[in-house]
Amino acid sequence: MNTQVTHTNRVAQAIDRIIDAGDFTRIFIIADTNTAKLVVPQLDSKSCTGAQLITIPAGEKNKSLETLSKIWTQFSDSGATRNCLVINVGGGVVTDIGGMAAATFKRGMPFINCPTSLLAAVDAALGGKTGINFNGLKNEVGTFTDPLHTIISTRFLSTLPPHEIKAGYAEMLKHAMLHNNETFHRLLRNDFKQSFDTDEFLNEVKTSSAIKLQFVHIDPNDMGPRHALNYGHTFAHAFESLAMMRHKPISHGFAVAWGLVAETFLSHHICGFPAVDLYALAHFVLANYGAFKITCDNYETLIELMTHDKKSRHGEINCVLLSECGKPIYDQRISKDCAMAALDVYRDLMNI
Amino acid sequence: MNTQVTHTNRVAQAIDRIIDAGDFTRIFIIADTNTAKLVVPQLDSKSCTGAQLITIPAGEKNKSLETLSKIWTQFSDSGATRNCLVINVGGGVVTDIGGMAAATFKRGMPFINCPTSLLAAVDAALGGKTGINFNGLKNEVGTFTDPLHTIISTRFLSTLPPHEIKAGYAEMLKHAMLHNNETFHRLLRNDFKQSFDTDEFLNEVKTSSAIKLQFVHIDPNDMGPRHALNYGHTFAHAFESLAMMRHKPISHGFAVAWGLVAETFLSHHICGFPAVDLYALAHFVLANYGAFKITCDNYETLIELMTHDKKSRHGEINCVLLSECGKPIYDQRISKDCAMAALDVYRDLMNI
Repeated sequence: MNTQVTHTNRVAQAIDRIIDAGDFTRIFIIADTNTAKLVVPQLDSKSCTGAQLITIPAGEKNKSLETLSKIWTQFSDSGATRNCLVINVGGGVVTDIGGMAAATFKRGMPFINCPTSLLAAVDAALGGKTGINFNGLKNEVGTFTDPLHTIISTRFLSTLPPHEIKAGYAEMLKHAMLHNNETFHRLLRNDFKQSFDTDEFLNEVKTSSAIKLQFVHIDPNDMGPRHALNYGHTFAHAFESLAMMRHKPISHGFAVAWGLVAETFLSHHICGFPAVDLYALAHFVLANYGAFKITCDNYETLIELMTHDKKSRHGEINCVLLSECGKPIYDQRISKDCAMAALDVYRDLMNI
Repeated sequence: MNTQVTHTNRVAQAIDRIIDAGDFTRIFIIADTNTAKLVVPQLDSKSCTGAQLITIPAGEKNKSLETLSKIWTQFSDSGATRNCLVINVGGGVVTDIGGMAAATFKRGMPFINCPTSLLAAVDAALGGKTGINFNGLKNEVGTFTDPLHTIISTRFLSTLPPHEIKAGYAEMLKHAMLHNNETFHRLLRNDFKQSFDTDEFLNEVKTSSAIKLQFVHIDPNDMGPRHALNYGHTFAHAFESLAMMRHKPISHGFAVAWGLVAETFLSHHICGFPAVDLYALAHFVLANYGAFKITCDNYETLIELMTHDKKSRHGEINCVLLSECGKPIYDQRISKDCAMAALDVYRDLMNI
């Protein structure tokens, strides 16, 4: 891990410092159609004058080989070399695909991530994962490549609709639960009526990203301990896939919020996670995220999806469990009966 | 560098040992249409029974995004995971593209290289470079990813036509020149009438690959000292590109042999490389490789191509020079006049 992370709302100065310290022959900025319009003009970085802007279409469905190939073509046609610098300005789609394009062009150009969504700031833009969706599967192809630098700011969060803030906040909740009780309960006191583009919230984001980076540092290639970051995600991925099958896709962040409720019940049931904290979580999620509706008729499909999750090794259901906030146990095999019980309790807690 | 290299003609046993020591859920073999027919059936590895064979069309023009995408699709459709093992059986095209497919699928599956051509055994399959051609440019996209293991054998060299042996031998000559006078002159005593699929020649290959790996170990990401491996290649790439423009492509290995003559003249002219060794090299190359025909009318194009070489930073001609065998100086700027003189002397030495 050679990456550096800076938390600042003085983004242009941070970029200028990095560029001044380097010896780059040219700068490329990768943005999507939204951030090219709303964020890039606000950057005001003097070092980026004359940078070449590569704009990709916004949206998860464009995190594709086709888009990647178009970025490579623009690099190639411009004669980009490993002495150039790439700056990714956007949410997780931009940092994932822009990171992969940079990591693989001429076997690796240096790149900076400037995440503009909360989800990217606390998750996607950190930890060195790059990638695209392929063959209908998320992040099927990619690399582990550290950005030269990640600049995290809350300055651009005001450009986001409220549900995007909530989506990122679900990953912050997860990080808090992996960290300690105090952080977890502090986050539960939020009512989403505050402003988010503040220095105060930047501090909360800093805490959250530091938690993620602790796991990344001890296990950069995701061989074991880093799996803890998958807390809530076995159920979340199954919910997302079921929603896709219903042709009503749900946001990943919302799915994580609901997945946390189900897996925190499992943590309670199997490892004695305190019931009072489970209820506090469920109350917060229901109040702010509503519920993802499922019936008994969906159980079989959901169980099937969980046994085919990427993290599952031999067709078993694999979860992270917590004995309490801050004490994760990763790679736990869950029986189908337990998973069914978790779906039952999820419905109870979500008033379904 | 975590890669291990084994030189052996007992290839099946070497593969079995690696697989027995690992915990792989499945084995994939990537081969081209030639090696799938001529080499894979000879492998006789008991651990590869039941392996899934992925065959790609032979030839440099298939080192493409299209082929890469087809390999990814086969991995994906088969539900391949990071617990599977990929074995690349073939020349440089197979080890480059198979390595890139493995390095990027699910952000990295372990892979073994079993180079079957001499060029791959002493060069392409060693050093962790993977890649594809893109936008009409060689290796425009790729990664630095170490294979888990590289198994080098001369057993399959008898499946190759003589010009393929000569192509690989040119890189061996280059390595010898980077190493010492003794190795260089030993290689010059060859007349290509010997057998190559022997344990004796395996020893020569081992010496050659050890020289390459010395440079790779001190500079895995090709930031400086590894550039020495580019000896002969500035002129070689220009010759290859000119041949492409004439619609009569030449083999990379042959181009390297001719490039070595030109750049060894530069070494003599600028750094005092011994004239007697220059003449010995030119004699060997002319006798065994013939000459790549150029006239004064080609000089301007060749100079233009050299200033656009990948290793060139600011539109200058960049070469490696030797003051004597074993003493390379990398990243030397060459004036256009010197480059012209080298083309003149190349023509003299090659009787053109």
